[in-house]
Amino acid sequence: MSDKRGSRAADRTEAIMRTALELGEEIGYAKLSIEAVATRAGVGKHTVYRRWSSKGALFLDSLLSLNEAHLDYPDTGDVIADLRQQIHAAINLLDRAPVGPLYRALIGEALLNPQVAAALNDHFITPQAEKTVARLKAARDQGQLSPDFDLDLAMGILSGPLYFQALIIQKPLTHEYVDRVIDALFTGMGPRP
Amino acid sequence: MSDKRGSRAADRTEAIMRTALELGEEIGYAKLSIEAVATRAGVGKHTVYRRWSSKGALFLDSLLSLNEAHLDYPDTGDVIADLRQQIHAAINLLDRAPVGPLYRALIGEALLNPQVAAALNDHFITPQAEKTVARLKAARDQGQLSPDFDLDLAMGILSGPLYFQALIIQKPLTHEYVDRVIDALFTGMGPRP
Repeated sequence: MSDKRGSRAADRTEAIMRTALELGEEIGYAKLSIEAVATRAGVGKHTVYRRWSSKGALFLDSLLSLNEAHLDYPDTGDVIADLRQQIHAAINLLDRAPVGPLYRALIGEALLNPQVAAALNDHFITPQAEKTVARLKAARDQGQLSPDFDLDLAMGILSGPLYFQALIIQKPLTHEYVDRVIDALFTGMGPRP
Repeated sequence: MSDKRGSRAADRTEAIMRTALELGEEIGYAKLSIEAVATRAGVGKHTVYRRWSSKGALFLDSLLSLNEAHLDYPDTGDVIADLRQQIHAAINLLDRAPVGPLYRALIGEALLNPQVAAALNDHFITPQAEKTVARLKAARDQGQLSPDFDLDLAMGILSGPLYFQALIIQKPLTHEYVDRVIDALFTGMGPRP
């Protein structure tokens, strides 16, 4: 009985997120509202608000539900190969239509709306940062990372160039670009001693 | 006579940009319009449109007019010191109130509006990239940069982590953060051979 209720709730959550993506794709993020999502999903808007405090939070979870498991790091023992594979999976998810324009709009809203920025950080950036640091710590223990490398910088250094490419100069994020960035970051800009 | 006319036009251009910043600070970027700027500056809106094709382009030039010369690179012969100094100057200009929130709004609009994105690239990012690559080429010639470093990546790698800090995780951009990023980029993440 309580299992059935739990599974109905999970179905409803999934239906709401699927509806948010469908509607977002049809009318764009800017015009999306929690009310419109609730109506099309056939639930009350309070059902949506109980789980998500804002359109940004709902939308972010909806985007991530598409492919979240793929954002985990593999651990093959080769940190460069693993970073490549994880970042390729992330850009496959985040840089392609229909998700790409929707993710871009979400970042745009986060620049204007601190609540959306907080949801983006809590639901996506911080968990990703934790996974990244854990993978890099293992690599450091295996001697594949400089013992001096400052892990607090890892997310900014690894993903900053990708956000710059996608959001600031707005050029395609290719696997080849990712690979060149990772290689340059590992080698360093300075001359070898 | 034509000197006087040229100088009057320069005064008018300056007055329009100053007005755009004043109004932006008062009412925020979102509510700003070219019409409102023209009215307060006491010029016709066609005078504004002759020089700037969009609010984004006007606003970007207005921001840059504040301190543009400071965005040039010094060349003291020490590339790391010069990068630090130039990037400190850039964040002094772009990350502080009142410019910071306005620049953030401009980036947000660029994510939704390709014309603003093009103006941002043409008027700011591309000229900065050219200055950065020129300074790094000189450093490479002096043996201060790895001969293998891919200069096409320079802007993404150097400024990506700063945009990530300021726009994605929305933490303060300090001189100390800039210095740590530059040091990590020059040293590289990988173990020394």
